[in-house]
Amino acid sequence: MSMSLTLAQIAQQLNAELRGNAEQTITGLAGLAEATAQQLSFLSNPKYAPLLKTTAAGAVLVHPKQADQVQGNALIVPNPYLAFARLTHLFDDPAPAQAERHPSAVIHPTAQLHPSVSVGPHAVIEAGCVIEEGCLIGAQSFIDRDCVIGAGTKIYPRVTLYRRSQLGKNCILHSGVVIGADGFGFAPDGQGGWEKIAQLGRTLLGDEVEVGANSTIDRGALGDTIIGDQVKIDNHVMIGHNVQVGQGTAMAAFVGISGSTKIGAHCLLGGSSGYAGHISICDHVQITGMGMVTGSITEPGTYSSGTGLLPSQQWRKSAVRFRQLDDLHHKVRDLEKKCQQGQNASK
Amino acid sequence: MSMSLTLAQIAQQLNAELRGNAEQTITGLAGLAEATAQQLSFLSNPKYAPLLKTTAAGAVLVHPKQADQVQGNALIVPNPYLAFARLTHLFDDPAPAQAERHPSAVIHPTAQLHPSVSVGPHAVIEAGCVIEEGCLIGAQSFIDRDCVIGAGTKIYPRVTLYRRSQLGKNCILHSGVVIGADGFGFAPDGQGGWEKIAQLGRTLLGDEVEVGANSTIDRGALGDTIIGDQVKIDNHVMIGHNVQVGQGTAMAAFVGISGSTKIGAHCLLGGSSGYAGHISICDHVQITGMGMVTGSITEPGTYSSGTGLLPSQQWRKSAVRFRQLDDLHHKVRDLEKKCQQGQNASK
Amino acid sequence: MSMSLTLAQIAQQLNAELRGNAEQTITGLAGLAEATAQQLSFLSNPKYAPLLKTTAAGAVLVHPKQADQVQGNALIVPNPYLAFARLTHLFDDPAPAQAERHPSAVIHPTAQLHPSVSVGPHAVIEAGCVIEEGCLIGAQSFIDRDCVIGAGTKIYPRVTLYRRSQLGKNCILHSGVVIGADGFGFAPDGQGGWEKIAQLGRTLLGDEVEVGANSTIDRGALGDTIIGDQVKIDNHVMIGHNVQVGQGTAMAAFVGISGSTKIGAHCLLGGSSGYAGHISICDHVQITGMGMVTGSITEPGTYSSGTGLLPSQQWRKSAVRFRQLDDLHHKVRDLEKKCQQGQNASK
Repeated sequence: MSMSLTLAQIAQQLNAELRGNAEQTITGLAGLAEATAQQLSFLSNPKYAPLLKTTAAGAVLVHPKQADQVQGNALIVPNPYLAFARLTHLFDDPAPAQAERHPSAVIHPTAQLHPSVSVGPHAVIEAGCVIEEGCLIGAQSFIDRDCVIGAGTKIYPRVTLYRRSQLGKNCILHSGVVIGADGFGFAPDGQGGWEKIAQLGRTLLGDEVEVGANSTIDRGALGDTIIGDQVKIDNHVMIGHNVQVGQGTAMAAFVGISGSTKIGAHCLLGGSSGYAGHISICDHVQITGMGMVTGSITEPGTYSSGTGLLPSQQWRKSAVRFRQLDDLHHKVRDLEKKCQQGQNASK
Repeated sequence: MSMSLTLAQIAQQLNAELRGNAEQTITGLAGLAEATAQQLSFLSNPKYAPLLKTTAAGAVLVHPKQADQVQGNALIVPNPYLAFARLTHLFDDPAPAQAERHPSAVIHPTAQLHPSVSVGPHAVIEAGCVIEEGCLIGAQSFIDRDCVIGAGTKIYPRVTLYRRSQLGKNCILHSGVVIGADGFGFAPDGQGGWEKIAQLGRTLLGDEVEVGANSTIDRGALGDTIIGDQVKIDNHVMIGHNVQVGQGTAMAAFVGISGSTKIGAHCLLGGSSGYAGHISICDHVQITGMGMVTGSITEPGTYSSGTGLLPSQQWRKSAVRFRQLDDLHHKVRDLEKKCQQGQNASK
Repeated sequence: MSMSLTLAQIAQQLNAELRGNAEQTITGLAGLAEATAQQLSFLSNPKYAPLLKTTAAGAVLVHPKQADQVQGNALIVPNPYLAFARLTHLFDDPAPAQAERHPSAVIHPTAQLHPSVSVGPHAVIEAGCVIEEGCLIGAQSFIDRDCVIGAGTKIYPRVTLYRRSQLGKNCILHSGVVIGADGFGFAPDGQGGWEKIAQLGRTLLGDEVEVGANSTIDRGALGDTIIGDQVKIDNHVMIGHNVQVGQGTAMAAFVGISGSTKIGAHCLLGGSSGYAGHISICDHVQITGMGMVTGSITEPGTYSSGTGLLPSQQWRKSAVRFRQLDDLHHKVRDLEKKCQQGQNASK
């Protein structure tokens, strides 16, 4: 029951210019090197242009500039990667045809679910929730009381929403996600112990937010934790209490953002990059992988930290010298002075 | 059904000195900048003292030294942050009024649950468990056989306890936590493969331990993994087999502690800091975020590693020079020698 | 109902040479320092050889070279650590005696389960799955449609397999694992937003793969994500879409591998080490903890990055100087030139 489309149908779908055989059948997508005659491919990175000569693909999505290099069928579009992204959805596994509520799901009588909402086996939806049109609530997910879930949002199995969390429209939450757990807040009790600070705020997600498997976004301590529209979050990300993230920002796996920090819009946060609390990152900032961000950033641009990778034996020497860097700096300053004195003396 | 208290009631609760209108009603808490006339705020960090002049808060918790600067109502206490922490619990969402056991929960007949224990929908409690007074076992949680859970402990939905795990009193485990999974132990089989070492120990948590969402604490290989009283653990933390953590230690998100390492009492472990296996950290050590701890620490104090953040273009230059640091060190030593020889020669 | 074996039985099991009392009863395993007269221990690291004189263990597994140093009973084998690993399984908690399918599990009528498969409470197995002989499907786990699970594989409670995932024989997946969630793929839509790229590939695991608690392995975008036989994965690991991992490779907690990267066979990836996308690591590479791998590696060996740990005050100085490293390099070069000129001048 797989998808099959002619190039004419695909061209119409994408509003693309078609060169070649309009009746060619396409049953799947693949990279230029792997594609067969029934598969469609794309050229986005010019580095791969030489593959246009050798690919067996049934058709290739290309920019007008590269169209002449395509040997077989070409679909010409201004942004081949974006067109490819749109096409992938046609070849995806189909969603369930109609709303189902598994009888094992436990739905509180005061929860308001649009009739089109599907609820998987063993899911639990508590009192006062509002779940809008077309949502999918995955098996074994837990939606605590008074949550609001916008239309078209898909929650995969085994997701938790703590009480009063709010999701916008067309969000996707992957398995293992935890939204709205307590922020990490404790006051020293003056005797070596800790007094827990009850976390009274909420977690609010905008529209079209995607959250990867096993990521967590904590609830606010007093105010709310706020994630903007179109924010894309990879697996194992941790967003602390009262963080704010601007729209369109994307963050790779293991990003950790400490409490009350503000991340701007359209930022790209590399994998395993970490952010101190109570700082502010402006819009259009990119942090490379493992970046250690301990202060605010006010200028757009790309930032990095770390030492790069070395053979361990060589690394150990550099690491020892790193410890002595301030000494080395002073030695060089002393040498410069002596050198200057020597030159002056010899004048 | 939100909470409402007079300042007189709050002052009594906190044993605070009240200056101002004892009948003022408080319905919530907020920061100095955001608080309204019905909300109570606090001053802990003196940096924010100027806000005392402008805040609209219905009352402010302050230290005696700052009391005179409060324009409106003041609640005077020796430790405003601690008093605030205690107050938050009054304004938290109320716990369920009475014990409930959802009929969909699967509880083995040999498990011993105090009558006051609540068990959520689709939870599973296996044979031989002992669950003490007042515990909450969240929906869809799995408590494997022979676990012991101390009085007052709260387990949020979707938590796993492997067999024979033990939790102390008044612990909190957030959603996604996994206690007692196998430690990472394999012996090379001499042929490029691995022989699994069955993990025979347990995981033991003390009293008042909090474990954040999706954190994991592995069971011991032979002996046990032991977490002391009042240890506070953020989200996505990983504690390996046979680790021991002393009381009152707090660890931020993504802390990873390798097997058999001992962490002292009252330590503060920064986010994403990592700890090699089989080392020992003494009491009262603080590690800053992303700290790389490869050896034992015997002196209390604060420790760091990493390079800080730079614009990527500048960072690339520094990273290249880091590789050459040992060379640079030797060049400077040579220059020092020559300079010394030059000076000697010119004497 | 704990295990009890004589040394004669154990010697036979391991094909070991026994010196001492063949009738000695062993009821458990322990380290040399902790073992009692009923417990068996082992010597693998020669560093601990002095403990052979003082241990109270009922017997010790040793290499022939150390056999003479054992005061009590000895079991002599060529690889004591491997022999110990094999023994641990005898003392592990027993698996359930016979297959059970809890009536609360929801198993689709088109799923094919071998009669010997056990399924825990509240588990969900969707249409078209094939689950082979002897598998255990833990409570509350979710196996989406068309998954294939090889014989002898054990899935702990609360695990998710997305549709069309495949596991080999004798795999172990710990609680919280998510296999086959969407890879992190989005195309910029040219207006500051993102177009999701549907993830059409699968996740394929070989035989005897172990995956630690809360780890995630994403499905491929077009092709598949492929994990080789005998790959051992610790907790909180993230493997991105279309990654390939060669057989026998082991990775510690918080390893993050970005999309389309190839990791060789028999590699050891240290905790929190990170791997850029689209790179290739050859066989027999070891990366130390927190290693930052941004380019391909073509030579076997051990590689590191990072700065090591310093007292924070000292670290701050080194971190400042790191920023100035390129300057320092140029200053030293200038000094070398002047020094050379000075020497030439004085000739």
